[in-house]
Amino acid sequence: MRNLLATVSYDGTAYYGFQTQPGGNTVQDAIEHALLQLTGEAIKIHGSGRTDAGVHARAQVFHFHTNSIIPLERWRLALNGRLPEDIRITEIIEVPLEFHARRSAKRKTYRYSINGNRVPDIFVRRYQLHHPGKLDVEAMRQGLEHLVGTYDFTSFASRHSTKTSHVRTILEARLEVEQSELAAGSHEQGVIHLYVTGNGFLQHMVRIIVGTLLQVGEGKRTPEDMKSILAAKDRGAAGPTAESKGLMLWNVEYDFNSPASEQSEWTDAEDHEDDE
Amino acid sequence: MRNLLATVSYDGTAYYGFQTQPGGNTVQDAIEHALLQLTGEAIKIHGSGRTDAGVHARAQVFHFHTNSIIPLERWRLALNGRLPEDIRITEIIEVPLEFHARRSAKRKTYRYSINGNRVPDIFVRRYQLHHPGKLDVEAMRQGLEHLVGTYDFTSFASRHSTKTSHVRTILEARLEVEQSELAAGSHEQGVIHLYVTGNGFLQHMVRIIVGTLLQVGEGKRTPEDMKSILAAKDRGAAGPTAESKGLMLWNVEYDFNSPASEQSEWTDAEDHEDDE
Repeated sequence: MRNLLATVSYDGTAYYGFQTQPGGNTVQDAIEHALLQLTGEAIKIHGSGRTDAGVHARAQVFHFHTNSIIPLERWRLALNGRLPEDIRITEIIEVPLEFHARRSAKRKTYRYSINGNRVPDIFVRRYQLHHPGKLDVEAMRQGLEHLVGTYDFTSFASRHSTKTSHVRTILEARLEVEQSELAAGSHEQGVIHLYVTGNGFLQHMVRIIVGTLLQVGEGKRTPEDMKSILAAKDRGAAGPTAESKGLMLWNVEYDFNSPASEQSEWTDAEDHEDDE
Repeated sequence: MRNLLATVSYDGTAYYGFQTQPGGNTVQDAIEHALLQLTGEAIKIHGSGRTDAGVHARAQVFHFHTNSIIPLERWRLALNGRLPEDIRITEIIEVPLEFHARRSAKRKTYRYSINGNRVPDIFVRRYQLHHPGKLDVEAMRQGLEHLVGTYDFTSFASRHSTKTSHVRTILEARLEVEQSELAAGSHEQGVIHLYVTGNGFLQHMVRIIVGTLLQVGEGKRTPEDMKSILAAKDRGAAGPTAESKGLMLWNVEYDFNSPASEQSEWTDAEDHEDDE
């Protein structure tokens, strides 16, 4: 028995999210189907967390156990040849049997992209929210800073969240503005990329943060309002949930050098499961 | 009567090329349909040149005549609201009646993108050729340099070309390598972007140049072979036509300050029509 850890990119546009569900057509289903074709084994994969319908991943991570004797260096090409073109394995490594894609994860980063230009960029139209209305980016940046730290994020979680604790830590958050060449000189807002790194996320957390920050950018709320929204611990206090298409799971980080005992700190942290 | 000049981006994946043809489903058809809906006029648009099935445009340009009294600043939004999501007008200006999107064009630039990494980037999979095999980029760069200048490009034109002259001038050509963050450190080749600027192009010219340069990159030809291929004036002397999906009409340049007499230099240059 081996434990393999894979990194995967997917365009979530056509899928009902990452994790298998009754309706079918998920990224997990497609990967498990490819694994079955390749190995003949009915393998269940374990993702670092779920992503919602329409959410993308640049680098989602999952692990799975297999008895296949296929050499490690052959897996990626063999799996990619059996996957649809909107899902691609970018890396596969072997890890100790106790390693768990979700429980062993140390940090996770999401990116949300907002195209603030008057005309959307059609070549990335599936991965950016289009918001041509004027945004105060500096106010959004200030609002975002109020969320860095350890807080109860109930106000920024779906009402359907079933987690026992809504306390999470946002370790880093930044906002970058990318100016396109075509738009330069024509007073365009550019594309706003929001990166949020945390130890775990609640369902819709990044999308509700973005929906609320857009209201800050539009002048409907002040940056300081983020503090009272946190304090309210009430989903109704925050803004709307931003569209899923702008969200991308950017990165999942592991500390491969830490001893197993440290990794096991996460073993029973079931509610750190990411539900974006 | 007004003459309007529009810049348009399109994802060519779903279309049988830019220019109207019997089979329908072209970018021109979609734009003329939107113009009809907006103005009630059966307007014919004139592109700076054709692009083939599956070829994209970052900034194609076309002009059209209209009697509509819609104010200039309203056209873009009104047309985009009537266009499919893979076609977007990025700019519309008013030009003198004698201005012609093709005949008045001074320079045109195409970009061809080759992903040389082991795994394709799924987010731009429709706009990049995937070529994971080892490429000698420096040899490709040298081969490309041999094409800069005024030559008979018969060897690099489709056999179906009906043009009376195959003499064209490549004004500039460059090759840029973009390293992705994910691939860094893992000895990946990166994405090779080839930019070619000319006064006009023959059918499939950039794609045949790319197909031939890929053979140079693979070591099947030397950079100097480009000289004998040009001299042969025979399509059979060059390499294959690279896939259309990697090609994008990048830019069309006009000299708006030159007098009309200079622009009319192009009036009867029918065979400068671009057929990429």
